[in-house]
Amino acid sequence: MRLLITNDDGVHAKGIHILCKELEKYHDIVIVAPSDQRSATSHSITIREPLIVNEVELPGLKSKAYSVSGTPADCVRIAVDQIVDKVDMVISGINIGYNLGTDILYSGTVSAAVEATLCDIPAIAVSTEWHAELYSYENAAKYVRKIIEVADTNGLQDDIVLNVNVPPIEKKDIKGLKVCRIGKVQHSHYYVKDDSDKENVVYRLEGVRKVEHDEETDSYYIDKGYVTVTPLHYDLTNFGILNEVEVWF
Amino acid sequence: MRLLITNDDGVHAKGIHILCKELEKYHDIVIVAPSDQRSATSHSITIREPLIVNEVELPGLKSKAYSVSGTPADCVRIAVDQIVDKVDMVISGINIGYNLGTDILYSGTVSAAVEATLCDIPAIAVSTEWHAELYSYENAAKYVRKIIEVADTNGLQDDIVLNVNVPPIEKKDIKGLKVCRIGKVQHSHYYVKDDSDKENVVYRLEGVRKVEHDEETDSYYIDKGYVTVTPLHYDLTNFGILNEVEVWF
Repeated sequence: MRLLITNDDGVHAKGIHILCKELEKYHDIVIVAPSDQRSATSHSITIREPLIVNEVELPGLKSKAYSVSGTPADCVRIAVDQIVDKVDMVISGINIGYNLGTDILYSGTVSAAVEATLCDIPAIAVSTEWHAELYSYENAAKYVRKIIEVADTNGLQDDIVLNVNVPPIEKKDIKGLKVCRIGKVQHSHYYVKDDSDKENVVYRLEGVRKVEHDEETDSYYIDKGYVTVTPLHYDLTNFGILNEVEVWF
Repeated sequence: MRLLITNDDGVHAKGIHILCKELEKYHDIVIVAPSDQRSATSHSITIREPLIVNEVELPGLKSKAYSVSGTPADCVRIAVDQIVDKVDMVISGINIGYNLGTDILYSGTVSAAVEATLCDIPAIAVSTEWHAELYSYENAAKYVRKIIEVADTNGLQDDIVLNVNVPPIEKKDIKGLKVCRIGKVQHSHYYVKDDSDKENVVYRLEGVRKVEHDEETDSYYIDKGYVTVTPLHYDLTNFGILNEVEVWF
């Protein structure tokens, strides 16, 4: 298969390197990723500034790689439009930091995968915990290879993202793989006033992550040592309440 | 009710002014919005830089207003955490430019409203076409006032966004209001190479919007002259395919 790899940690991130190293043994790979760190950029796109595209050499990899002066979603858009012919699947990651629950709304990694499905290309987003050791990235890369196979065999539709998270534990300790829904993640103590600035009213983000541990969600299973897989879609319509709201008006 | 108004066009945008002017007749309003234009920033948040908050005076309005050096989602987070006590509903808009179909994924306006629901506050996002005349903003503001009433009467849940679009036509020509799902919006001819730059490979976005006119979607009804209302939610899980994917593994 021809795979486009991207991420939101930048083209030089170790996650992209380890993922490509594993996948280029089996697939035709092109990397198109942001020129630098673009975490928490969500699904933002560059509409006013031009995008600068540079071919870059990534030591130890045989695949072609390009850096783009934009967001992860920009990378997918310009790759599909201008750089790579006929992409079979987009793989976004391996992200440094989980993308679990409603936190995926902030994620550049997941948004790049969602952008792929808007271009009618199925996609996989993959993340591990931010403090993970090297072997976690290697585990994640091997899981992605298997998930690509399974997705291809079963005909993953071109409007579906599989969001994958891999716990930062040794392979022998991983309990298995769970397909599950996303949970709700809330944050508390968002902002702390910074009194060192005498001219402006300044706040700094010092959030504490509070996960609602509903059973059978991604946050729940990852804490139990499972790799989690959640199929996502781009339609934010709340069909569960659509008919009710219709009656209101 | 106490309403928090925000947008992605900046605190000085006419959409915010006209909306506040209408709503402050009936409600207690606080405006917290980006210090400048932040369109297409989607659900991005500021995690590394501090946020600077300034009280600003908006001539002609009696409500308090604050500018924030961040994204629309940042504005909702810091407003709820630090600036406004007990917000009953967040109103995001009136955006300069429709937020229809899958284009809402890029929208800072809609993302601010989704962020409100992550903070357990119901929200309304409202937009009109970019070339709209002043009366379209005034129509939109009046529709929002009615929709707030209807939502309040019917107990809009705190995890629901109502995404509202108002066509740029005179009030007498508006056919009514349709509650409907979002459609898929695709873009073509995204990028054009800019050969004037001799040092870099540079592309500029010159998109043409292609709307899939499936019937009963927001894009379909807005073109027929209806105000559209779509209830949105923040759960991107594709429940329709969850069980099928479970069988794959």
